[in-house]
Amino acid sequence: MVADRVRHTVAFTLVHAEGSPEELDFLHAAEHLANIPGVEAFELLAEVSPKNGYRFGIVMEFADRAAYARYDGHPDHIRFVQERWLREVSEFLELDYAAR
Amino acid sequence: MVADRVRHTVAFTLVHAEGSPEELDFLHAAEHLANIPGVEAFELLAEVSPKNGYRFGIVMEFADRAAYARYDGHPDHIRFVQERWLREVSEFLELDYAAR
Repeated sequence: MVADRVRHTVAFTLVHAEGSPEELDFLHAAEHLANIPGVEAFELLAEVSPKNGYRFGIVMEFADRAAYARYDGHPDHIRFVQERWLREVSEFLELDYAAR
Repeated sequence: MVADRVRHTVAFTLVHAEGSPEELDFLHAAEHLANIPGVEAFELLAEVSPKNGYRFGIVMEFADRAAYARYDGHPDHIRFVQERWLREVSEFLELDYAAR
């Protein structure tokens, strides 16, 4: 990775049944996070390792920590966390990567 | 991500002191995993989130699960796990991502 750049990742599991309309609705809503200013290289992925219980992953990159902080405080992000994430995510882990 | 492709990631912490020669030696050895056939887009990164205790991350991609399995069973990978990983890594979590 390029210096200063941050790759924000979160692995998560939903309270919804696998393949349910509620699951799909959450994932569609999560895709809109890609539209928040500063978000680059957005990916909504399946987590497929048998060694943990997480089922999905979101990956996004920011040019630097300031851009990451602006995303974190953006009203659309805060609204998503309050209205969807806190209610519909049962387990999650955030891992953020940068160049060594 | 392209269908079939797998992104193998592992977040980890070492038994070694931060910035120690032992830490650096482990990281240098880990970089050689990039030379194992099938490994693509290898990255050895810093894990920088204050929300977890992991300090490093390794990310690599495989064209498909068969390439991932060949890596997993490759003698150089097995030797690294036995001689370095099991002795020098104190905590780790593997997360593998694929297209939804």
